[in-house]
Amino acid sequence: MSTAENIDVTEALSRLYKAEDILLLCHKNPDGDTLGSAAALYHALTRLGKTAAVLCADPVPPRYDYMKLGLFDRSFEPSYVVAIDVAGIQLFGDAVREFSDRVDLCIDHHPSNGGYADALLLDGTAAATAELVYDMLCEMGAEIDPLVASCLYTGVSTDTGCFKFANTTARTHIVAAKLIEAGADVAHLNSVLFENKSRSRLAVEKLALENLEYHFDGRCALTHLTKEEIAATGAQPDDLEGVTGMPRAIEGVSVGITMRQQPAGSYKISVRTELGTDAAAIAAHLGGGGHKQAAGCELLGSLENAKAAVLAEVEKVLCRGS
Amino acid sequence: MSTAENIDVTEALSRLYKAEDILLLCHKNPDGDTLGSAAALYHALTRLGKTAAVLCADPVPPRYDYMKLGLFDRSFEPSYVVAIDVAGIQLFGDAVREFSDRVDLCIDHHPSNGGYADALLLDGTAAATAELVYDMLCEMGAEIDPLVASCLYTGVSTDTGCFKFANTTARTHIVAAKLIEAGADVAHLNSVLFENKSRSRLAVEKLALENLEYHFDGRCALTHLTKEEIAATGAQPDDLEGVTGMPRAIEGVSVGITMRQQPAGSYKISVRTELGTDAAAIAAHLGGGGHKQAAGCELLGSLENAKAAVLAEVEKVLCRGS
Repeated sequence: MSTAENIDVTEALSRLYKAEDILLLCHKNPDGDTLGSAAALYHALTRLGKTAAVLCADPVPPRYDYMKLGLFDRSFEPSYVVAIDVAGIQLFGDAVREFSDRVDLCIDHHPSNGGYADALLLDGTAAATAELVYDMLCEMGAEIDPLVASCLYTGVSTDTGCFKFANTTARTHIVAAKLIEAGADVAHLNSVLFENKSRSRLAVEKLALENLEYHFDGRCALTHLTKEEIAATGAQPDDLEGVTGMPRAIEGVSVGITMRQQPAGSYKISVRTELGTDAAAIAAHLGGGGHKQAAGCELLGSLENAKAAVLAEVEKVLCRGS
Repeated sequence: MSTAENIDVTEALSRLYKAEDILLLCHKNPDGDTLGSAAALYHALTRLGKTAAVLCADPVPPRYDYMKLGLFDRSFEPSYVVAIDVAGIQLFGDAVREFSDRVDLCIDHHPSNGGYADALLLDGTAAATAELVYDMLCEMGAEIDPLVASCLYTGVSTDTGCFKFANTTARTHIVAAKLIEAGADVAHLNSVLFENKSRSRLAVEKLALENLEYHFDGRCALTHLTKEEIAATGAQPDDLEGVTGMPRAIEGVSVGITMRQQPAGSYKISVRTELGTDAAAIAAHLGGGGHKQAAGCELLGSLENAKAAVLAEVEKVLCRGS
């Protein structure tokens, strides 16, 4: 149940102008949007002479070091807490629990935002929270220098898969154009964010391709990774997440399934579907859930049993659709 | 030696308004930019009541069928010939030789354009010829309906790797925004152009990953595909071209090498390098050439001999750079 007061950019700025000792909270497993948006706001606020810092439950991946995030080191007692790109209270992570139940302002673009903050600045039509922070900085008259432009460009581009996902709008491109004009280092950022892959990521891709199988006349592609295989690659969670889109992207495939064995032995199942085929319906019958095009569940038992259970649900949905 | 008269958009339009029975020529192995730009111009000209048609030496890939290109069927005798996105006369292909030596107007964005046409409308700062054709249509006051917007979006997005390559500018994003506002079907196009992969493309990727090896402390990644391996995948030239960027994109790699065996047995070598490492220098010593970051050559002999020759040149460049 949302108890948050919905406010607009002007009102959010008015509250930030009055605030002192501001703590900016990112979501756990931080991505380019939560970090880039927080960094841009951090730089704008400190340039106004305010004390501010950024806190995240998980470490910041090194590719975002360039953002010069001022991480919270407990050198001040926060009196105003702002959550950035955090749709629900469970996404903060346990390490920041002491602040996550006293959020004064949440700035977000997820239509599903739980409304856990006192005040909510939400634009559910924005492709990234960074689009909204760009609006805020413009209304503040804050300088968008190359560093801030790069932070915001990182937010906008990572949340849209470099302007490829269906959430990309004309406005997304216009913001990107403004950020490039302001000096965002796009050639370098695009190379780091979208081109470079770790050796372990490639090892995971190779495995996923080797274990790839087709079912139901090629309308379903399924791959699996056992815990021993995953361990042998040295893959990080990031690397594994990256391959879940692969089976669905194959020509003629309506349902793509990736089965990743967890350390305790169960299989985490990722279901990805093309438009018109319901991923959530497949996952729901197996005790999971999610969205129309992306859903998931977790199954105990052997690989063969888990695979049979998933394929039985896939078959039902494919038959119903045809 | 260029003999072309350089003209601007206004002059190019003035010549097109006077022209009748217009033939639009694309380059061989047609891509989204040559086809999308030609299609947009084709629709604009026919809506002015002119007879026009598009000719390309190679078949149009089915993913571009939506463009409703009016292909040249010899139902009229061309009196004005326009080349679109064709940097040099050798890129037309033999099948259109009867027209390629009588080009009245060339519309292009390649700074290397050979100037083979009577008149040249060139914008070397445009990321795609489609950016330039967008300008032409705006100046004409032509309607940019969803179909034309989709054609131009295809040109802009494919020539920039979906806004990822270093040629992408603020202007590219602004044109994309205008085309989305005009109704370009971006969600569908992005999925078809940048997400979906054929089964044979994935088979080639799997092979390339299986044959991947690292040299010089991981600063060089090299893969090869023998003609037998290529034949087993059923891969098309498109599929093979797509993997040449893979070795270079691995974290820590300065030089990426892909060796594709040709039907007659020789190896076609693709050299890709990071900024600051000269790909052309590597290829030049092996009888090839190219650009700073992308070059190529062809070597006779066994795989082992060809590999040794390439690695010797890679080592020289890596040592010089360090």
